[in-house]
Amino acid sequence: MTSTLNWCAGTRKVRGVSKYWSEAARQAAPYIPGDQPQGKVIKLNTNENPYPPSPKVLAALRDEVGAQLRRYPDPTAAQVRTAAAELYSLSPEEVFVGNGSDEVLAFAFQAFFHRDLPVRFPDITYSFYPVYAQLYQIPAEIVPVAADFSIDPEDYFHSPGGVILANPNAPTGLFMPVEAVAAVAAHNPSRVVVVDEAYVDFGGCSAAPLVREYPNLLVVQTLSKSRALAGLRVGLAFGSPELIAGLDRIKGSFNSYTVDRLAITAAEAALRDEEYTRTVCAQIVQTRMEFMHRLNELGFRGTDSKANFVFVTHPVVAAADIYAELKERGIYVRYFPAPRTADYLRITIGTPAEMDTVAAALAEIIKLYSA
Amino acid sequence: MTSTLNWCAGTRKVRGVSKYWSEAARQAAPYIPGDQPQGKVIKLNTNENPYPPSPKVLAALRDEVGAQLRRYPDPTAAQVRTAAAELYSLSPEEVFVGNGSDEVLAFAFQAFFHRDLPVRFPDITYSFYPVYAQLYQIPAEIVPVAADFSIDPEDYFHSPGGVILANPNAPTGLFMPVEAVAAVAAHNPSRVVVVDEAYVDFGGCSAAPLVREYPNLLVVQTLSKSRALAGLRVGLAFGSPELIAGLDRIKGSFNSYTVDRLAITAAEAALRDEEYTRTVCAQIVQTRMEFMHRLNELGFRGTDSKANFVFVTHPVVAAADIYAELKERGIYVRYFPAPRTADYLRITIGTPAEMDTVAAALAEIIKLYSA
Repeated sequence: MTSTLNWCAGTRKVRGVSKYWSEAARQAAPYIPGDQPQGKVIKLNTNENPYPPSPKVLAALRDEVGAQLRRYPDPTAAQVRTAAAELYSLSPEEVFVGNGSDEVLAFAFQAFFHRDLPVRFPDITYSFYPVYAQLYQIPAEIVPVAADFSIDPEDYFHSPGGVILANPNAPTGLFMPVEAVAAVAAHNPSRVVVVDEAYVDFGGCSAAPLVREYPNLLVVQTLSKSRALAGLRVGLAFGSPELIAGLDRIKGSFNSYTVDRLAITAAEAALRDEEYTRTVCAQIVQTRMEFMHRLNELGFRGTDSKANFVFVTHPVVAAADIYAELKERGIYVRYFPAPRTADYLRITIGTPAEMDTVAAALAEIIKLYSA
Repeated sequence: MTSTLNWCAGTRKVRGVSKYWSEAARQAAPYIPGDQPQGKVIKLNTNENPYPPSPKVLAALRDEVGAQLRRYPDPTAAQVRTAAAELYSLSPEEVFVGNGSDEVLAFAFQAFFHRDLPVRFPDITYSFYPVYAQLYQIPAEIVPVAADFSIDPEDYFHSPGGVILANPNAPTGLFMPVEAVAAVAAHNPSRVVVVDEAYVDFGGCSAAPLVREYPNLLVVQTLSKSRALAGLRVGLAFGSPELIAGLDRIKGSFNSYTVDRLAITAAEAALRDEEYTRTVCAQIVQTRMEFMHRLNELGFRGTDSKANFVFVTHPVVAAADIYAELKERGIYVRYFPAPRTADYLRITIGTPAEMDTVAAALAEIIKLYSA
């Protein structure tokens, strides 16, 4: 239950601002990831997969541990580009590979968004987007989602400097049909539309096949969620060759080799074992439905999540209280205390046994606070 | 002998500039890494270690391949910070860990150098520095090294926006005493001095112990060379807690987890097996001296390299010709065709057997061209 983060991030130790920092470092507003608690806890706070990576991934990794680790990896990660391209009948020139989708997104902000033209994204979405905008000094037009957290695609037509949307959105889990994504791309013909599909394999449908029709559409995915490889950091982008070339230009100006040999090996094996991925994702979707049903019985309401988490609120008990009570019981979920999300909890879907424990704890907490 | 880079970098496929690219993408001038030829070649072009990683590293990696790869890594890579700190009797708050020293250097440019004040570095040095300056729009004051490639530390006193030096320098291999590094740090009290020690373990001496005395000194190292882990991408920085916090602010605004679980495992094990590193480095230094002796006999002249490469020129045969002839024979070395380096070749030190083959090939080529 202790965290390894005590002295982390330096920022917490060093109060204030250093005279040695650049303006960029002074003005940076780093993203705060979910805690990484150690020991015997139920960890449902960072949307990791409750199942291990494919056995074929682990076997491939064991084979790759050897003397050749002294050699630099292929800077293009060609074997991953090829395997990813085949998933959507694209070509390797239409795929980019990065050190986690966070790196891919950071490169996309640098490659496609502008210092003098605002990029548009929702107020409730992956909270790294405003962090990138701040770091790269890109102005942002932040569009409120509706009261039910839904996104109106028309709000993203004719953006001055491009668009970024998560689909399914985080932390709401709401999925926008690919037709809506196509409409946003079609109505921004001279700007880039980035769609972050980190959670698409849990009930959504990818817009990747649309990248041939829309040369301004970049579809970003990750192997951290559905492929259970959060520990190895591999992200993908699908797009026209000119968008991929833009990402390559930024990457090549930053770090020639961002994806290491073992990550390349694992990613290729994972992308080539779609049956395992589909089986795991189907189980998680099943568990999500069962868990949501039990939460409804306890009075919770939630979004129609198509992700590997639910986003729920209780009419009587405050989310902050539930969050603290769960933590007390060794159950970590995510709580975003911003105004529009402060009534909600985001709970990652774990194994059926883990969700049984969580449901029982929630029943107890609700009873306690409703008494 | 074929390269995997044919379709790489996108930039080679996409001619010209895309209307979707930002100014940053348009103006980027990506670094071009050495080729990664496949098949049976002698690869002495990217300064990799000819020996495998420590057996303890490989054993630790095999142990870490398992279900826990589904979990995000520790975002602080605390176990690597601790192991690295112990090498120089520093504390973990004085260490930063990144995805290769290239990432660490890119963060340092963002965290410590300025859009309105030029950073100073030599004309002949690691050619990624001007690439970072271009990407982050930091002006540069480029100081010519002397005719013998030596660096006068006084040229780096009172820099308007900070300093970056490689020590030993690349591709010359020349080492500047730590006293000179201390003098540069002392004469830039309100600016950051970055010293890139990628090659320090092959005959240099690290300035890392000086970071307590000079809070403006950042010492960057890599596990790619002396620890034979180029394939896993781990870089380090040593500095005052306020400099490390500056790097953490940039990293936390870019990618929460840049170093993956297997890289963390390998890095810790490598840093804790100093005996292996020292043995391997001593062997490489020995081979370098023997190889340089044979090159001198063939009429080559070279710098007094303290790195795992030599930097040599021949009075009769042009470097470009030697480079092409070696490549013809399946021997890859590095050739930098810029004006001041076009007479030289950089040859990585491999195993004694590899260097025997290279020396024999060079003897043949010199004879051929001198006839």
